[in-house]
Amino acid sequence: MKKTDIIVIGGSAAGIVAALTAKSTNPSKDVTLIRKEEIVMIPCGIPYVFGTTGSTSKNAIPDKGLLGLGVNIVIDEVTVVNKEDKIVSTASGEKYKYDKLVFATGSNPALPMWLKGRDLENVFTVPKNKLYLDSFQSKLKEFKKMVVIGAGFIGVEMSDELNKSGLEISLVEKLPHVLGATFDEEVVLEVEDQLTERGIKLFTGLGVAEILGENGVVNGVLLDNGEKLEADAVIVSMGYRPNAKLAEETGLRINQMGFIETDQYRRTSDPSIFAAGDCSEKRDFITGKLSGIMLASTASAEGRIAGINLYNLAVLKSFAGTIGIYSTALGDNAFAVAGITESLAKMEGIDYIAGSFTGMDRHPGNISDAHKQMVKLVVSRESGIILGGAISGGKSTGELINAIGFVIQNKMTVIDLLTSQIGTQPVLTASPVAYPLIKAAEVCLKKLRK
Amino acid sequence: MKKTDIIVIGGSAAGIVAALTAKSTNPSKDVTLIRKEEIVMIPCGIPYVFGTTGSTSKNAIPDKGLLGLGVNIVIDEVTVVNKEDKIVSTASGEKYKYDKLVFATGSNPALPMWLKGRDLENVFTVPKNKLYLDSFQSKLKEFKKMVVIGAGFIGVEMSDELNKSGLEISLVEKLPHVLGATFDEEVVLEVEDQLTERGIKLFTGLGVAEILGENGVVNGVLLDNGEKLEADAVIVSMGYRPNAKLAEETGLRINQMGFIETDQYRRTSDPSIFAAGDCSEKRDFITGKLSGIMLASTASAEGRIAGINLYNLAVLKSFAGTIGIYSTALGDNAFAVAGITESLAKMEGIDYIAGSFTGMDRHPGNISDAHKQMVKLVVSRESGIILGGAISGGKSTGELINAIGFVIQNKMTVIDLLTSQIGTQPVLTASPVAYPLIKAAEVCLKKLRK
Repeated sequence: MKKTDIIVIGGSAAGIVAALTAKSTNPSKDVTLIRKEEIVMIPCGIPYVFGTTGSTSKNAIPDKGLLGLGVNIVIDEVTVVNKEDKIVSTASGEKYKYDKLVFATGSNPALPMWLKGRDLENVFTVPKNKLYLDSFQSKLKEFKKMVVIGAGFIGVEMSDELNKSGLEISLVEKLPHVLGATFDEEVVLEVEDQLTERGIKLFTGLGVAEILGENGVVNGVLLDNGEKLEADAVIVSMGYRPNAKLAEETGLRINQMGFIETDQYRRTSDPSIFAAGDCSEKRDFITGKLSGIMLASTASAEGRIAGINLYNLAVLKSFAGTIGIYSTALGDNAFAVAGITESLAKMEGIDYIAGSFTGMDRHPGNISDAHKQMVKLVVSRESGIILGGAISGGKSTGELINAIGFVIQNKMTVIDLLTSQIGTQPVLTASPVAYPLIKAAEVCLKKLRK
Repeated sequence: MKKTDIIVIGGSAAGIVAALTAKSTNPSKDVTLIRKEEIVMIPCGIPYVFGTTGSTSKNAIPDKGLLGLGVNIVIDEVTVVNKEDKIVSTASGEKYKYDKLVFATGSNPALPMWLKGRDLENVFTVPKNKLYLDSFQSKLKEFKKMVVIGAGFIGVEMSDELNKSGLEISLVEKLPHVLGATFDEEVVLEVEDQLTERGIKLFTGLGVAEILGENGVVNGVLLDNGEKLEADAVIVSMGYRPNAKLAEETGLRINQMGFIETDQYRRTSDPSIFAAGDCSEKRDFITGKLSGIMLASTASAEGRIAGINLYNLAVLKSFAGTIGIYSTALGDNAFAVAGITESLAKMEGIDYIAGSFTGMDRHPGNISDAHKQMVKLVVSRESGIILGGAISGGKSTGELINAIGFVIQNKMTVIDLLTSQIGTQPVLTASPVAYPLIKAAEVCLKKLRK
């Protein structure tokens, strides 16, 4: 039996950051990361393998960060955790004695049992698994028409990348709009326009009755309105489920949504075991409710909290709850959201106001790479605190939504925002007199005063 | 004599935002903006007129925002303010009775008396004046070689744009480095490399002894080391001086740096008169000292504070002090700073630590428009509070520095930052496991612990 101080199970975002943080917080401890995959995929980069980057080998997270810091990497599968004796057993027959353990076992694509035809050949999901993705990609040239079921971020990005690569894509979504679970209507309408313009056929507000096939091979999708879509291949992108099986077998408590129960320090029900990332419980920053958010950036933040708090709880701050910060891009058009949307505010019964402003992301707006920029804010009517923001804009959207993320996480009010400094520059940002984030706050202030 | 409730003197960033905010805060009041210029220039867009945008008419701030809200615009020059009777007189002989007055008279280019040769033909400054800029631009085709004196933001951006337009540019700076008053050395070295690579000749650590000429026309610049640079034209970009002359004549108190004295609500020494923008006093957010910062974004924030507080001080928050947020770009390379630099921390005797991390602004880094991204943080050793940040990166730098701006203005600590959520997306941002802002915070934490 080998001995190590800290074991991290899982090699993706949460696992990597947990291991790095554990080691840099406790340089004298021996840290071992055990993962199944020889090569780890950048999780959010996976759709881009099918167009922009072109191969999984260009989408790998290098090991040099871990190795450079002195973290041991073991390629193996943990099969049993004996939490009483603090021993981990692996598929290769190895045993490891640990002091602290971190579950970062991630998530798996949902492929619901009720979905008839799910086992047909050429029905794919999008797992974070290089071998699977390579085999999927190697078959692409056989396909002409594909149906993508589920228009969340992965479904939309996969559709766009495969469309770029020359395939005919039909994107099917049960909700009234693509990305409808994440964005308010004004943004999703723009996303839909973009997708349609780029040649993707949208079927929204339509569920899938059945995946159709012949001789065990997929040949179409039957929608619940009776319409039949032809397809050589189908991608099921209906979300991800926490991979909490090993944790459950270990005897850790699992919450009602299927995530490993954790507190704000990322401790599980066992005092020596932490959990971070897609497999672990999240609570919404604003509502305090259990949340199903799965994002590599959130996973990284959780991995960091776990790594920091393994031995030394009291000294360092815990996690205030999860604020979802999402962004995506279709060509030069980017869309992002942080915190609460207007639809969610309505659903949660929050007394809110919302305001938006549309300008340009350069000034003057005739600078060649200028892009329209719309910023929307959702604000608590009683406190004036900013609860959420959304952007439709150019490529700076990805960082502007992080600025809004800090606004929300610091519980800034509309007045705080209006009396804050921002920096502007002609070829980098909107104008100082028409900076959409600030102008949207002005619109909100006016509504608050009524 | 005309009667109006609120007069704003000055039509640039501070004046526009003050007038807009005054009107939207007090919809029943009559608001009049008096300005000298027929057409107002986007101030930070001016250098780009000489290359990227190509003409001042493409760099105008439209009046439609003001007019749409019902603000009166008067093109005239205010010559006298009688603050006892609350009457403003103009060059055209008009008189206006006011209730509240806002000075937003801006700044003028410095052209020091000691600078011999300053009056020669073809010696230019960079004022916010369309007519001057048009006449300057119309002469450009006569010139081949230009010397730019002063390598602050305007000097650097003018040099780069004129160089783009085919002129031979020599850029002279008395400090050891270009932008040396704003950035730490590692960033300015990169800026210098970029400028040199783009074909601009740099003369740093060298003052100007004299601007040389013959028959009243400039023909060169003599450096204080005896070197002589040939030139058909010279641009003096040695900073700007607050335009506080009218305020001084009005009897308002002027501070030791020449700015109109104002409190945190932007009130001057006269209770009915406010001041905002380049002409008005600023204090540093961190040191509390008087500051000479002049930025359109800062001016806009001050205009907003003035406009909000004209009639109703108690209700709304005042201004916490000025944090400088600067950014600029040379081609696809952008540089930005917020708050305090390491050099300034040293100078102010702040007990600080600094840490930086360099990664890529896309993930994986092989995405075609990926750019190196360096983030540096300056942190108070005692409190762990983040005092400043700097970036060298691609075009998302302009918004990422605003994210850092919110971090600083919310007095976030390194731990706060490390336990914050950020959002990441392959084609928009750095990777979640190597997001340079967060990694720089990790580097800082490690140093804090020592």
